[in-house]
Amino acid sequence: MSFCPNCGQPLTRKIPPGDHLLRYVCTACGTIHYQNPRIIAGCVIETEGKLLLCKRAIEPRLGYWTHPAGFMENGESVAQGAAREAMEEALAKVKIGSLLSIVNVLHAHQVHITYRATLAEPGYGVGVESLETRLYDEAEIPWQDIAFLSVRFALQRYLEDRRLGVERMHGQDIDWQHGKLVTTER
Amino acid sequence: MSFCPNCGQPLTRKIPPGDHLLRYVCTACGTIHYQNPRIIAGCVIETEGKLLLCKRAIEPRLGYWTHPAGFMENGESVAQGAAREAMEEALAKVKIGSLLSIVNVLHAHQVHITYRATLAEPGYGVGVESLETRLYDEAEIPWQDIAFLSVRFALQRYLEDRRLGVERMHGQDIDWQHGKLVTTER
Ligand SMILES: [Zn+2]
Ligand SMILES: [Zn+2]
Repeated sequence: MSFCPNCGQPLTRKIPPGDHLLRYVCTACGTIHYQNPRIIAGCVIETEGKLLLCKRAIEPRLGYWTHPAGFMENGESVAQGAAREAMEEALAKVKIGSLLSIVNVLHAHQVHITYRATLAEPGYGVGVESLETRLYDEAEIPWQDIAFLSVRFALQRYLEDRRLGVERMHGQDIDWQHGKLVTTER
Repeated sequence: MSFCPNCGQPLTRKIPPGDHLLRYVCTACGTIHYQNPRIIAGCVIETEGKLLLCKRAIEPRLGYWTHPAGFMENGESVAQGAAREAMEEALAKVKIGSLLSIVNVLHAHQVHITYRATLAEPGYGVGVESLETRLYDEAEIPWQDIAFLSVRFALQRYLEDRRLGVERMHGQDIDWQHGKLVTTER
């Protein structure tokens, strides 16, 4: 971020009066431009006892597996965003269920919010952002080729809860500390 | 948003190839500038059986009551943001507990995420964004002067759960429909 979205003049970074963090502030009109974390809305879809996963056709982590998930859009709820991603990535019309996990990815300025889901209509396919989609039995899940730590966390907790017959909400923080990624369950 | 934050040249609004929504796109460098909902992190703080509320010193809803809540910052978790807001607005050091509610405020492009909390240390005060802070018994809560629908929802569900001895997660969507605000519990 280099120029003011309001007036087009150069930005500087400074701590505004009464604030405690460096912000982008316009050198001409004085507008403060805040930056905030973005929500990744997703869902773990179960049908016939199997989980529907997508092989990513885009970077980052092209070729790795994930449940449908992506940036939440203005004008939708988190659950609507999760259902939209299921349609876009797996051509799946889903019914969103209970909240499964909230994962704070601190270094990426993202919050990954994932719901349980089932197919509202039979059938699924391969969306433009996927190379392949597939139903996986628990024993077949490609744990070595999962795209993101937050996806691994959601899938693991989903399966543990299913074994126990419960639907809990799980929290995790992911951050770089001393040169490595550290995960903390909350 | 009128100018490109990357290069300072004018923006236009169009649907990029492969997309389905109008985006701000730079007329010079071509960068697409996505806009996404922001998270309001908050907590309902209980101590000695009472709830700690703040009378807002800032617009919107100046003079109305709320639990501590505000925009989540980059580099923190939702729970850390909720605890920071408790310190800023009520000078309260809190221990964050279970997730209480997720409220999608669709027309405002906001997701309000609220946790249960208790005081980690005795004492509280009046932060710069508050006119007054006060502990309220359930029977005293100023329901006519609550700042936001999402605050009312969180407080109501908190108190109902407390009566039942449970800690559930509650969801609500708020949106303008046909000229009025409509709330839907999820
Ligand atoms: Zn400016
Ligand atoms: Zn540009």
